[in-house]
Amino acid sequence: MSTTVSAYAAPTPKAPLEPTTITRRTVGEHDVLIEIKYAGICHSDIHQAREEWGDGIFPMVPGHEIAGVVTETGPGVTRHAVGDRVGVGCFVDSCRSCAHCKGGREQYCTQGVGTYNAVGRDGEPTYGGYSTHVVVDENYVLRIPDALPLDVAAPLLCAGITLYSPLRRWNAGPGTQVAIVGMGGLGHMGVKIAHAMGAEVTVLSHSLRKRDDGLRFGADHFRATGDPATFTELAGSFDLIVNTVSANLELNAYLGLLTAEGTLVNVGAPENPVPVAMFSLIQGGKSLAGSMIGGIAETQEMLDFCAAHGIGAEIETIPVDRINEAYKRVVDSDVRYRFVIDTSTFAR
Amino acid sequence: MSTTVSAYAAPTPKAPLEPTTITRRTVGEHDVLIEIKYAGICHSDIHQAREEWGDGIFPMVPGHEIAGVVTETGPGVTRHAVGDRVGVGCFVDSCRSCAHCKGGREQYCTQGVGTYNAVGRDGEPTYGGYSTHVVVDENYVLRIPDALPLDVAAPLLCAGITLYSPLRRWNAGPGTQVAIVGMGGLGHMGVKIAHAMGAEVTVLSHSLRKRDDGLRFGADHFRATGDPATFTELAGSFDLIVNTVSANLELNAYLGLLTAEGTLVNVGAPENPVPVAMFSLIQGGKSLAGSMIGGIAETQEMLDFCAAHGIGAEIETIPVDRINEAYKRVVDSDVRYRFVIDTSTFAR
Repeated sequence: MSTTVSAYAAPTPKAPLEPTTITRRTVGEHDVLIEIKYAGICHSDIHQAREEWGDGIFPMVPGHEIAGVVTETGPGVTRHAVGDRVGVGCFVDSCRSCAHCKGGREQYCTQGVGTYNAVGRDGEPTYGGYSTHVVVDENYVLRIPDALPLDVAAPLLCAGITLYSPLRRWNAGPGTQVAIVGMGGLGHMGVKIAHAMGAEVTVLSHSLRKRDDGLRFGADHFRATGDPATFTELAGSFDLIVNTVSANLELNAYLGLLTAEGTLVNVGAPENPVPVAMFSLIQGGKSLAGSMIGGIAETQEMLDFCAAHGIGAEIETIPVDRINEAYKRVVDSDVRYRFVIDTSTFAR
Repeated sequence: MSTTVSAYAAPTPKAPLEPTTITRRTVGEHDVLIEIKYAGICHSDIHQAREEWGDGIFPMVPGHEIAGVVTETGPGVTRHAVGDRVGVGCFVDSCRSCAHCKGGREQYCTQGVGTYNAVGRDGEPTYGGYSTHVVVDENYVLRIPDALPLDVAAPLLCAGITLYSPLRRWNAGPGTQVAIVGMGGLGHMGVKIAHAMGAEVTVLSHSLRKRDDGLRFGADHFRATGDPATFTELAGSFDLIVNTVSANLELNAYLGLLTAEGTLVNVGAPENPVPVAMFSLIQGGKSLAGSMIGGIAETQEMLDFCAAHGIGAEIETIPVDRINEAYKRVVDSDVRYRFVIDTSTFAR
């Protein structure tokens, strides 16, 4: 028996979000019904609601940083129980049989189903976390450890794993020099996680405006990219640079900051192709890489890691009727550091 | 006591090479004097002699694919003895104290000394392998195993290690799908080495003209990049692509051939920056990397590997007075697959 629940949706591309109701599917054999407590607002929600990344499915209920509590389980569910604190990230299903799924890299499955703005394996559109409830296959639901408050845990499901995965894959840890470019919703998570992994962390931010915050989050150094001296003084310094900035940067200058065999990983993508001087890569055996969220097992590992190290997102909690105002502030980079919707403010 | 020896030099930028004599330094405490038997011709010799990569030091004696026999050793030499079969590659010294040198990545030492077109630590210009003799510090001299004939071993010192290093670093081996883009002097070594490492090897060449050779060298598949079907049929296929082509390729199309978390390594560099679509890297967690020759220990490992697997370069041996003709044919891609100068043809 499907359920009608409250949600906030963009009715058409670029339209403001407004209250609505949507239908959640009947809880199936392996499904859990989650009462959503908090939903983070990711910049990609805005890109999709405004069709800046191509055609979308409307009405669109964004939200892929979901934290809540299980209120019902299907008869075949073994991984979660009623009352469990759980989270849902950027995808809610995948093929489960390709090499990526079998290797724990479900995020790269070509048959993956996004948490919203996608079509599920039942042929129905998916709706995201700006809502009171969601039904998700248990295999795509994460446990949120008790040590993590649900509000600061929500953004970990996208922003947290987006930074954790490349930091882990490229071995951030004791003895490594890591730079985080940009200290917004993504970047501030990178600072906290890289510091907790034991790396020496430098923030590369346009100005020194957020310096105090950066040092408080665990950065060892905070340098302004608006100052040309930064690029000469730090040349050849970093084993790993994670770039969270979506705007077009002069990437060759950042490649110059890597030591030999270092890697510059991009998790934010500019719309247009970026010119890369191949000599910048060859002379030094460097890599320019991309990374997209993380797999299910790795996301669980990240949540457990954050719980063990007391890491949550820095958030500004808003009632649901302030979503459109929050969208404007995200676009203006006027948020420290992530908006989280308190779903208790939904009309019921 | 320094020695005057025969050589072929470009007297000025872009001038044809001509016979000359040069002075080799006195054999020092840790030096060996090598009687050069064969010297390979690398395309980078031509780029440097013609100042296509910036200012050069003239007269210039190119050649960094050197194979010969030790004829004299300094009193402190322990690694080599008179009569040993040895090789010299792209560099003849480095600082020995930086992290790269200590980590066996001397090729990335910022104080490295090129085999030619460089200034040694004694302040004198270095001269390369188009000559009858060379004096080199023993630590930058490689052992050539008895199983490797010196003529086919010479090109291993640059072309061989240039391919071996990225194939090893990115784990080419049983169960991996490796593509080699371009089958010239570099690429044909990549096919042989990747095959010997146990990878399934595909050559991506502009046409099928060299197909029979490719299969003979060990390729499992040979596909034409001039055929658009290649890019649709092989989409998502490769764990590792090594691009040996210096011309500007549409790299985003090649990134599409990688599987998730795959790597496209460039060992040949186009002059101008290449536009890279960042989404091509992010969606799939892919890497675009560069690689430059290899360190001393790794070069020795490569020579031992090639000896164990019976791998030498495919060569066309020429007398020294045909260097200029060979240069023209290299530029025209009219060589299968590497020219090697027989130094017995030098006037003595």
